[in-house]
Amino acid sequence: MMQRRSEPLDRTGEDESSELSTVTRRIQRLTSHLTSTLPTTGEESALVAVDLERCAGGGKGKKAAEMVVNTAALSEYMRGKYRDVQEEVYAYFNARPHLQTPIEILKDDHRELCLKQLMGLVREAGIRPLRYVVEDPAKYFAILEAVGSVDMSLGIKMGVQYSLWGGSVLNLGTKKHKDKFFDGIDNLDYLGCFAMTELHHGSNVQGLQTTAKFDPMTDEFVIDTPNDGAIKWWIGNAAVHGKFATVFARLILPTHDAKGYTDMGVHAFIVPIRDLKTHQVLPGVEIHDCGHKVGLNGVDNGALRFRSVRIPRDNLLNRFGDVSRDGKYTSSLPTINKRFAATLGELVGGRVGLAYSSVGVLKIASTIAIRYSLLRQQFGPPKQPEISILDYQSQQHKLMPMLASTYAFHFATLHLVGKYSEMKRSHDDALVADVHALSAGLKAYVTSYTAKSISICREACGGHGYAAVNRFGSLRNDHDIFQTFEGDNTVLLQQVAGDLLKQYQEKFQGGTFAVTWNYLRESMNSYLSQPNPVTARWESTDHLRDPQFQLDAFRYRTSRLLQSAAMRLRKHSKTLGGFGAWNRCLNHLLTLAESHIESVILAIFIEAVKSCPDEQSRAALKLVCDLYALDRIWNDIGTYRNVDYVAPNKAKAIHKLVDYLSFQVRNIAKELVDSFDLPDNVTRAPIAMQSEAYSQYTQHVGF
Amino acid sequence: MMQRRSEPLDRTGEDESSELSTVTRRIQRLTSHLTSTLPTTGEESALVAVDLERCAGGGKGKKAAEMVVNTAALSEYMRGKYRDVQEEVYAYFNARPHLQTPIEILKDDHRELCLKQLMGLVREAGIRPLRYVVEDPAKYFAILEAVGSVDMSLGIKMGVQYSLWGGSVLNLGTKKHKDKFFDGIDNLDYLGCFAMTELHHGSNVQGLQTTAKFDPMTDEFVIDTPNDGAIKWWIGNAAVHGKFATVFARLILPTHDAKGYTDMGVHAFIVPIRDLKTHQVLPGVEIHDCGHKVGLNGVDNGALRFRSVRIPRDNLLNRFGDVSRDGKYTSSLPTINKRFAATLGELVGGRVGLAYSSVGVLKIASTIAIRYSLLRQQFGPPKQPEISILDYQSQQHKLMPMLASTYAFHFATLHLVGKYSEMKRSHDDALVADVHALSAGLKAYVTSYTAKSISICREACGGHGYAAVNRFGSLRNDHDIFQTFEGDNTVLLQQVAGDLLKQYQEKFQGGTFAVTWNYLRESMNSYLSQPNPVTARWESTDHLRDPQFQLDAFRYRTSRLLQSAAMRLRKHSKTLGGFGAWNRCLNHLLTLAESHIESVILAIFIEAVKSCPDEQSRAALKLVCDLYALDRIWNDIGTYRNVDYVAPNKAKAIHKLVDYLSFQVRNIAKELVDSFDLPDNVTRAPIAMQSEAYSQYTQHVGF
Repeated sequence: MMQRRSEPLDRTGEDESSELSTVTRRIQRLTSHLTSTLPTTGEESALVAVDLERCAGGGKGKKAAEMVVNTAALSEYMRGKYRDVQEEVYAYFNARPHLQTPIEILKDDHRELCLKQLMGLVREAGIRPLRYVVEDPAKYFAILEAVGSVDMSLGIKMGVQYSLWGGSVLNLGTKKHKDKFFDGIDNLDYLGCFAMTELHHGSNVQGLQTTAKFDPMTDEFVIDTPNDGAIKWWIGNAAVHGKFATVFARLILPTHDAKGYTDMGVHAFIVPIRDLKTHQVLPGVEIHDCGHKVGLNGVDNGALRFRSVRIPRDNLLNRFGDVSRDGKYTSSLPTINKRFAATLGELVGGRVGLAYSSVGVLKIASTIAIRYSLLRQQFGPPKQPEISILDYQSQQHKLMPMLASTYAFHFATLHLVGKYSEMKRSHDDALVADVHALSAGLKAYVTSYTAKSISICREACGGHGYAAVNRFGSLRNDHDIFQTFEGDNTVLLQQVAGDLLKQYQEKFQGGTFAVTWNYLRESMNSYLSQPNPVTARWESTDHLRDPQFQLDAFRYRTSRLLQSAAMRLRKHSKTLGGFGAWNRCLNHLLTLAESHIESVILAIFIEAVKSCPDEQSRAALKLVCDLYALDRIWNDIGTYRNVDYVAPNKAKAIHKLVDYLSFQVRNIAKELVDSFDLPDNVTRAPIAMQSEAYSQYTQHVGF
Repeated sequence: MMQRRSEPLDRTGEDESSELSTVTRRIQRLTSHLTSTLPTTGEESALVAVDLERCAGGGKGKKAAEMVVNTAALSEYMRGKYRDVQEEVYAYFNARPHLQTPIEILKDDHRELCLKQLMGLVREAGIRPLRYVVEDPAKYFAILEAVGSVDMSLGIKMGVQYSLWGGSVLNLGTKKHKDKFFDGIDNLDYLGCFAMTELHHGSNVQGLQTTAKFDPMTDEFVIDTPNDGAIKWWIGNAAVHGKFATVFARLILPTHDAKGYTDMGVHAFIVPIRDLKTHQVLPGVEIHDCGHKVGLNGVDNGALRFRSVRIPRDNLLNRFGDVSRDGKYTSSLPTINKRFAATLGELVGGRVGLAYSSVGVLKIASTIAIRYSLLRQQFGPPKQPEISILDYQSQQHKLMPMLASTYAFHFATLHLVGKYSEMKRSHDDALVADVHALSAGLKAYVTSYTAKSISICREACGGHGYAAVNRFGSLRNDHDIFQTFEGDNTVLLQQVAGDLLKQYQEKFQGGTFAVTWNYLRESMNSYLSQPNPVTARWESTDHLRDPQFQLDAFRYRTSRLLQSAAMRLRKHSKTLGGFGAWNRCLNHLLTLAESHIESVILAIFIEAVKSCPDEQSRAALKLVCDLYALDRIWNDIGTYRNVDYVAPNKAKAIHKLVDYLSFQVRNIAKELVDSFDLPDNVTRAPIAMQSEAYSQYTQHVGF
């Protein structure tokens, strides 16, 4: 729970009867700064020149080679190919102060502003995202990221309209739906909703209870909410703006047997909810406002109850299953489960977008915290100027592994977007499976990390981090739900674990691993032998910074966790059944999933380092990548120690190196955040402005 | 960064060529619930009765003895002796809906409402806290906790008025100040501020730059803000309501030498800032609004600049240092540092109050999350009803150690309040030192834990946790700054480490440990020998649940960390100087401080278990205490493994027992949260009502 900074307890074994005089002076100084009533020796007289490198972790007088980072070159390598459209978005809003969200705004005003922002973007700036949803997802995600940095509510509202509502019509419907709805969705005449979640069912989509019963007399479906638990809940665009909703409901077909009907499972239907002209809520539809949320209050989430709402048969989104005029069901897919999987499978783009946007949020938060930590000075050596708080080991510990992770996630999510785009082009089956598991894992891992990091950034900036204008509050509140929507993270990680176990099983049946899990093919056998007691003691910096050692360590852990999970599941399922065994091993399975995702991220990062054409940038990225890898190993050192994969001396060396690499990254921290290439009008926090931050802050307050 | 669930990698060593058929079915079911396109075998046919105990961690068919908890008895033991006044507070606000803070409220309205709430409480309900600040702090803290549960802004506004402004006048001033100000502060005629922090200086109070220069011609002090960095910042009550401020400034006295003046260090002065009748800001004072904060927007924080503001000599709060009519300085304390320490030392009550109130917040958050997790059902074994999400091992992992920690912190902060009250009565020097370090450590540790836990609770409640009405957003936003104000947590932990090192040093000079650190006297020698390789392998439940083993483990860790920190500091200070050495070991020192605080909390908790008169309650508390202890050991298992204090088999046994104890605590989780005795009008979240939570939630939304 507490972030644990494990310390090797036996770092020194020296004689303990020391005078500790310098230490005492320091303690006295510190305690006198604070609130103690301890006696002090008065003013310190020693003028000790402070060698920040050695203080922070350099050790043994070894001076680090100075690293030079060419921000332009690194930025060029980092920047996606859709920077232009992002700059269009920024420019549009920068020129329109009335479209910028103020710090204080009432919920209802925020919703109206958010709609105006979206209307302006589409109808005035001419950014029309719908076709990119299908044709060029990378461009769509780039727009989404930029729009989200203007106001995350706007990003989500756009996502509801184009990915969810628009995406469901395009991906689950057929030509007739596209012909009828494309333009209206694209130009915002047809604002719409994605009505999947119910009050009682979120993660368990197959448990949804809303029904769509076919009435052969009128050739219509009748949509009903059978009980309070089946009220559609949290539906974006529903409370105020939506005209239509894609409603997920159990398709009920009449039969001629005694039962009288058959449940064909969950399907998607287009249901008009408000009159296109008068905007009145339509008969049979009851809509309430879900009210204030922790964040994203520019999005109007509503709750919907249906009472015998009739829609034409054509409104079934019939790509994966159709009903004929006489009530016969047809589908190219053989089972309910397959159809359900195909339906949800089309919606995976939402997760890709969330993972990608979450990294955007992490970049903004870490940039603000790091720029302020460079600016802010507090305490210092006796009789010398105060030092930047980023020169404290504790601040480096909070922020430098975070910066390294931001780089790691940047490359990992770019990779995911690339794979997703490829999948949309090729529809290759193996790629589909790969993207599904990878998007689930990265969405879960990255959004959890970002959520925790925003809080750490706030704390790292102290009181000024608590000023709303400095952004951490709204970033945290808006981003928080990224961990839950489009799949609860704990559930998504189980999906990753489930997929790994399936691959593991197929291996023993002669099958192949999906692309991203490929490493397991090689690693399973080699990694599952006993750890080598010689390499377990290697502790040289060259060895620890060797990508092969790092990858081996990550993959060894995943392989062991996978094998032991499989064995435990097998053992427990005999007595507890499949469900019971799964629950009995649940924490283990979540650890397995996280471990796997970490190793996938590392592998992508290592490749990205190798591929960087600029030598200085490559060196900087290598440093950052090493910190990412070794920090993760150190965080989980108990696991490695438990199987003697790492001997105590090596554990100590890793710990020391993490401190040292954090210090080295700190020395290029300014350049590393500058390379994210976020203009001041995107970061916006006065304490993080690239010049005169303090005076911009005092001006903000009115001085 | 990620919360790491380390798994022993080698939990099973069974044959790996298994069919995994039950597992496969489970995976297929899970993936089909989610978004996979994997083929499935259709409907599951197995009807496996689910044995929740064994699923969640019971293992080996051993049925746990059913534990019965008498909520009334446990609650009676938990409840503080000032429950009456808390109930008065609740009753007052329950009867006055117009004084309850709505979910949406503009900042300025919130500030006015907050003042009305405070006025009502004092002038209508007749709750007058000022005398308790000095005479009965425990009662004052109980009022503060209750008021904070109405609206945390109100709690903080009350704290500003009574602990900070009132406390500074009573504790730093003398009789003349008390005579003049007591009634006005008590009845809110004299609303006031505590103006310590400046734009550039928060933690480093001795670095404050505001000056108070004595003018012997007029017998006045002249208060000045010498530069922008010295603007008083974040001053509660300043933006709108305050009439006075206790201003911390460097006392400058004229001398007859060449320099012309001497800097006597930071002192406190009463400075009127607004006209008592017209409420106009007084000449020379410039006040701006610090604006929106992440939370606590009912408190009007302002920024103050002084331009030659003249105050009578009597306005120096002169308990620890005085200036005579002819400009001579007198003090009972010999040095600037001693006077400074005495001054700040009087303000330690703020930290006690924050630690105590933070536990109150943690109780509310964990109660909401646990009640909802009992209510909410999702998924389940094939063909069987869905199960409560608290029956998932992952949910138990998130919430049960948190519940155990809430109990642990409850007793620890009650203990602290008791010690603080005793100190206020006795002014015993040893007790003063003890309370200072203990309040710093508990404030830092508890508020960090609570802040993280609120986020975990939100995530554990999924989408419904994101509804503002369910409280997590405002609890997190309001509580967030508890980690920073009244001493940044990272700085406070350094104070604890500094104090430990001082005690350690004194031990070798024949001195004594302060009361709370007493264990180190005995432990240092016995714990610093090599770990016993035999006990390192003991893994029986009886042994692991023996409080002596747990305490030994906690104290061993602290003792080793203390010794190694002292040695490392000594070594590095030779080359880096005291400041450099301190920074070089900073992460180590923070770990030491946390480790110490954890062991202090455990010792108090063990005593509280022993002292509980009701047998059933005692058994329940023992279970909870074991979970607290073993969860902490497991979280830091790398440290224990690195020195072979715990052998791999024992590490595995601890891990298994943590899962099992979490499951056992889950079985009495309802009773444990009920025993916090929080009425529904305190928890307020519709999803956590004690009956009909879902329907209260749908009603809230308008159905």
